[in-house]
Amino acid sequence: MSPIPVFDVMNAVGLVAFAVVGSLKASDARLDLLGVSVLGFLTALGGGITRDVLVGRIPAALSGSNDVTWAALGVVLAMVLARIIEERHLLDHPALLVSDAVGLAAFAATGALVGVDAGVSAFGVVVLAALTGVGGGTISDVLLDRIPFVLTEDFYATCAVAGGVVFVTATAAGVDPRTAAVACAAVVFGTRVAALRRGWELPRL
Amino acid sequence: MSPIPVFDVMNAVGLVAFAVVGSLKASDARLDLLGVSVLGFLTALGGGITRDVLVGRIPAALSGSNDVTWAALGVVLAMVLARIIEERHLLDHPALLVSDAVGLAAFAATGALVGVDAGVSAFGVVVLAALTGVGGGTISDVLLDRIPFVLTEDFYATCAVAGGVVFVTATAAGVDPRTAAVACAAVVFGTRVAALRRGWELPRL
Amino acid sequence: MSPIPVFDVMNAVGLVAFAVVGSLKASDARLDLLGVSVLGFLTALGGGITRDVLVGRIPAALSGSNDVTWAALGVVLAMVLARIIEERHLLDHPALLVSDAVGLAAFAATGALVGVDAGVSAFGVVVLAALTGVGGGTISDVLLDRIPFVLTEDFYATCAVAGGVVFVTATAAGVDPRTAAVACAAVVFGTRVAALRRGWELPRL
Repeated sequence: MSPIPVFDVMNAVGLVAFAVVGSLKASDARLDLLGVSVLGFLTALGGGITRDVLVGRIPAALSGSNDVTWAALGVVLAMVLARIIEERHLLDHPALLVSDAVGLAAFAATGALVGVDAGVSAFGVVVLAALTGVGGGTISDVLLDRIPFVLTEDFYATCAVAGGVVFVTATAAGVDPRTAAVACAAVVFGTRVAALRRGWELPRL
Repeated sequence: MSPIPVFDVMNAVGLVAFAVVGSLKASDARLDLLGVSVLGFLTALGGGITRDVLVGRIPAALSGSNDVTWAALGVVLAMVLARIIEERHLLDHPALLVSDAVGLAAFAATGALVGVDAGVSAFGVVVLAALTGVGGGTISDVLLDRIPFVLTEDFYATCAVAGGVVFVTATAAGVDPRTAAVACAAVVFGTRVAALRRGWELPRL
Repeated sequence: MSPIPVFDVMNAVGLVAFAVVGSLKASDARLDLLGVSVLGFLTALGGGITRDVLVGRIPAALSGSNDVTWAALGVVLAMVLARIIEERHLLDHPALLVSDAVGLAAFAATGALVGVDAGVSAFGVVVLAALTGVGGGTISDVLLDRIPFVLTEDFYATCAVAGGVVFVTATAAGVDPRTAAVACAAVVFGTRVAALRRGWELPRL
């Protein structure tokens, strides 16, 4: 999926982290083992699946991608961890938050590249970058009967949108898409970590 | 997208109105600026995106349609208006309700035409007409963690369904699809305005 | 849609049962007639529509399938029944629960066959089998602003997953897909009826 080796590593880290987050949220909401597994897989794979459906591809997650293995690893890891430590403490753990930021960066960058491949507009590229990053968490929150956290208080989707805008601006200025994707990932990760450290929030109307 | 000039105008009015409604609802639900923007865009563009996915097209909204500009205008307009007047008063304003009805009519008519182009069944045409009209609002309500208003008390989706049925009946009787689309839009707009003026509601079981 | 005659019968029984369940849940949630109809159709047809979108087909339900007629029959049946008996009593009726299990079995088996046709991975086949079975109910519960029941307490989606795993294992062992589909349906139906009789539940973490 990703033409740049470092993205393979970031992608794997992100899939595990996203699956852990999804499974822990499901467990915290008292879902059963199937629900915990489904939410783990969906949080990890849902953004990429939605993106692939929008550009008219059979989702990579259904056609033999390794992504499924990493997501499964995350689900199992969450199940083990949840027996040792309380879900809410795990969800706030810095290691998980940073891994999640790595995933957000990789997903946004690969989403932007898929958008370029599919020939969508600049707006479409930003949407696909953001959606690949936050789509899985959004679907999971909807299934958990909550307003998706990305829409309410966290400075999270904004990082993916910023990365998408950087990507679009760079490629419009003649930068190679692969280089632009690295810049995109760096912006997403950097803004996300800064937001976590400094408690950034977007204003309300 | 629309082969009939008046639909271009109606479509633009509707996109602005739908985006205003979505952004105001998001602001009223205390979402942040990103959430307000996302809900505005989704309310305006979500119906057409869902329709395009169902008929196997890359959504027009992602591949360079002007629709995005109109939706953006609506988001900005909502942000300006929400600083002056309270959201709930704006959402009930007759100018917004009529503009919204114009959009519902244009979206249902273009949805029906897309269905004919894609070769779907009569049932499929009615579904696509209604979905193009109400899909964006439905997705937004789901993200706001509410039962979509179109399913509960308003006489709203029923207007789009009625328009779809008129379209299907007319084309089955040999009427040209463009003429049938105008009749569809007229029925949607007429029934929606009548429902607003007279407080129509569907019965419950 | 189904290459095996008995599946046509099971499919029809399931569509009627699923539509009855969806309409009754909507009526119980005080939705109006349109909402009751939409939820009935979506519960019956939503799983197959989602599956078809994922494998890049225009949904059969929109392109002339008889499935729509069976779903319509279920909606009408629910409306008639709901005037006679209270929704909650109907939803627990053994005839409805068994018909629903028949549908779950038929949908999972046809979903697996569609996955094989589309050339997805073994994981993809299991996902499509389960999604065809539970997708409609999941969408309906989301629209009714609930955590989908398949994720929380019932031993329901697990039956479809088990059927999908049996299908994948059998075909990997060289069994003909049609035979494997019959085995899949048998496992889904058998585990679902056993779960109902014995009150099976999955553990939580």
